[in-house]
Amino acid sequence: MLKPKSVAIIGASNNPDKVGHVILNNYVEGGYQGKIYPVNKDSDLIMGMKAYKSVRDIREPIDLAVIAVPAPVVPMVLEECGKAKVKSVVVVSGGFAETGNVELQSQIVKIADKYQMSMMGPNCLGVMDPRARSDTMFLPTYKLSKPKIGGVSFVSQSGAVGSTVLDLIGKEGFGLSKFLSYGNAAQVDEVDILEYLMHDEETKVIIVYLEGAKRGREFLEMGKRVSKIKPVVIIKGGVTEAGAAAAHSHTASLAGSHEAYDAVFRQCGFSIAHDLDDLLYFGKAFATEPMPKGNRVAIITNGGGTGVLTTDAVYNSGLKMAEYSKETAKSLKKSMPMTVNVRNPLDVVGDADVKRYEDALMAISGDPNIDMIIVIALFQTPGADEKLAQKLIEYKRKMDKPMIVISAGSQYTEERKILMENEGLPVYDSPTAAANSLAELLKYSNYRKGIV
Amino acid sequence: MLKPKSVAIIGASNNPDKVGHVILNNYVEGGYQGKIYPVNKDSDLIMGMKAYKSVRDIREPIDLAVIAVPAPVVPMVLEECGKAKVKSVVVVSGGFAETGNVELQSQIVKIADKYQMSMMGPNCLGVMDPRARSDTMFLPTYKLSKPKIGGVSFVSQSGAVGSTVLDLIGKEGFGLSKFLSYGNAAQVDEVDILEYLMHDEETKVIIVYLEGAKRGREFLEMGKRVSKIKPVVIIKGGVTEAGAAAAHSHTASLAGSHEAYDAVFRQCGFSIAHDLDDLLYFGKAFATEPMPKGNRVAIITNGGGTGVLTTDAVYNSGLKMAEYSKETAKSLKKSMPMTVNVRNPLDVVGDADVKRYEDALMAISGDPNIDMIIVIALFQTPGADEKLAQKLIEYKRKMDKPMIVISAGSQYTEERKILMENEGLPVYDSPTAAANSLAELLKYSNYRKGIV
Repeated sequence: MLKPKSVAIIGASNNPDKVGHVILNNYVEGGYQGKIYPVNKDSDLIMGMKAYKSVRDIREPIDLAVIAVPAPVVPMVLEECGKAKVKSVVVVSGGFAETGNVELQSQIVKIADKYQMSMMGPNCLGVMDPRARSDTMFLPTYKLSKPKIGGVSFVSQSGAVGSTVLDLIGKEGFGLSKFLSYGNAAQVDEVDILEYLMHDEETKVIIVYLEGAKRGREFLEMGKRVSKIKPVVIIKGGVTEAGAAAAHSHTASLAGSHEAYDAVFRQCGFSIAHDLDDLLYFGKAFATEPMPKGNRVAIITNGGGTGVLTTDAVYNSGLKMAEYSKETAKSLKKSMPMTVNVRNPLDVVGDADVKRYEDALMAISGDPNIDMIIVIALFQTPGADEKLAQKLIEYKRKMDKPMIVISAGSQYTEERKILMENEGLPVYDSPTAAANSLAELLKYSNYRKGIV
Repeated sequence: MLKPKSVAIIGASNNPDKVGHVILNNYVEGGYQGKIYPVNKDSDLIMGMKAYKSVRDIREPIDLAVIAVPAPVVPMVLEECGKAKVKSVVVVSGGFAETGNVELQSQIVKIADKYQMSMMGPNCLGVMDPRARSDTMFLPTYKLSKPKIGGVSFVSQSGAVGSTVLDLIGKEGFGLSKFLSYGNAAQVDEVDILEYLMHDEETKVIIVYLEGAKRGREFLEMGKRVSKIKPVVIIKGGVTEAGAAAAHSHTASLAGSHEAYDAVFRQCGFSIAHDLDDLLYFGKAFATEPMPKGNRVAIITNGGGTGVLTTDAVYNSGLKMAEYSKETAKSLKKSMPMTVNVRNPLDVVGDADVKRYEDALMAISGDPNIDMIIVIALFQTPGADEKLAQKLIEYKRKMDKPMIVISAGSQYTEERKILMENEGLPVYDSPTAAANSLAELLKYSNYRKGIV
């Protein structure tokens, strides 16, 4: 399903407003290297390609069929796929359990099972693998940013949350391994997907939007297995009563109690995100940072107030502020000007240039009393420029501790942020986001070590 | 100080690396219409302008002197300002109480008091009034975005937090009335500033970053007075022990206990921000929205999962989900297609176009059971485009209830976001930010009505 050598798009169309057109276009324009077969019972030629009346007319091996036809027709189309020995299907069409058509959904599961086809959906965006240039999403590509290729796989029960977060990932420096939007989870569900991603060597970190797990016990067992190998960040939709009711109407999920899910996630060793932002923030830290050895944080800042807020955030996240070793304190007293108080947070003051940051990093980076480093680089100040960004990247490369940056601002700052992120140095907008992300690294590191 | 007819820049310089150069340049390039007098004891000509050895040599009325000379020289310069009958001074220079020089700070307060000059600082960025085009900040303008002119005044004890938030405000649709960074608060402090802004007709909303209020009782009294007239959103730096210690070293603030401040802020009727993002989010809602009549929220969404998360966020913020009136339910059942469940949140489904949103808004906007509206517009979907943004703006204009939008994404979405915000329709990135901002509106509305 994820790296198909051949794809049939059933419901392909010449009409650009049709879902089947958008999906076909993704494959044609997206640089997909495998074979593409448009299928439409009413056309012979679609987007200049030979079209087939039925998938059975293709008479070539088909790894993936993407089904974008009205719900009532899906069973018949699936039967044909089975007979044509299609290996996997993505059912994009909605109108199944989520609108009360439970019967129709059971019917398509039976057909998929009968022919041993793996089936994603229905009511989903499907799958995207940027390495394979395979993308079943019916979203106009000009509206979404294109994520870089990387190690984060994103699993979303919701297509909307999926597409929004995917679009936001395009703004981040970390890249995407796989995107899987599985909708009603009629056959392939989150347990299957977690199992697949656990073994997938291209996936280093898994981030998940979940409305409800149907197989609770298996989910728990699989979660524990995955967490022993790679980190999982999860956000649960429907944590309140009203939200749960909405989730039921959305993906026919039985949301279950918030407390029960929370307990399961904790037992699994998952990082729990409370907002979509967290999903990206935590995922970013896991994608780039080594595991911290302890909870002691050092802050370097060119903005006093931001240093104060970050200290608050570190403390509130459960981490603590490091105390410098004697050597570090001595070295800082020697290298810093009179206006700098040698303490943690280290406020290198608003007129700091790249040299002062370098002196600070040189003293701090090797200190055995420091486990993690937050560098606040406010590029609005006169001395903070491209050279500072480059110097931070240089230090990041030789650092064996987590080191992250806080920078917030408009265009000038955004450009430096992108530069740093593309070189593997994660940048956060806010003190809370930065501190909480480091705290999640430590929690996961402790989980892996058996310290919970 | 804020709308000077004449400004002397003491420490002005031809050297572009000097603070005095940057400030002078702000006035010259920034379109300031008053008189500008560069003062430097060693130069006759600065940036092509006649320079004065001393402020006393100017012999013209001076409304504001910006002082950017080394700390030890400040007392002498201030004496000269007093003798020259300067009305107000901004002392940009650092090296006073924040580095232990309490004595030097007392000395300059005495001089300012003796000559009845109002004094901002020391150790501050000073003031900015975009209407007067007056700006004492020593920050290179190419690094900051320029905020629109508007109704939000921003008071920051920290220059760094000030400049970052100011830069971020430039990305927002709401505009700036005044920016005041007051540093050590040696003479003019937060109480004076609040009093000024309370009376300032250009200021509709006040947002504040505070490390510590020296005059606790007066702060409480003034806070209560201001809140009766306009909303105040506040974030406190140094809410943890470690953060408080950092704050003391930053602006010599005695941070006081977190609980004490929290109690004071609540008594004042202030909105309490827990992160810099909140400061902008809440400020944005206050800048554009009318007061809600109750706590009942309706959600319209083209993304099911985002609707679920927003429902969770509404509930968690203390608000509740509205129940449609019979008329609304009837009207929706008539206008919505079969794929749409008529409930709240109203998921108009991923293929919704502007027409479907309009039908939904038409039914919902007049419902007496609904106090506030959140419209989720995910522009990644095929049907959501410029026309949708325009339609939402159109509804916003005739709406007498709070109505806000959630849209998150990269460039395509950002462009539509800016369009909506510039027309007074606030857009939020995340469900939590949106719901919490509406909850703050309600809290303030209740405070004003005496329901606490």
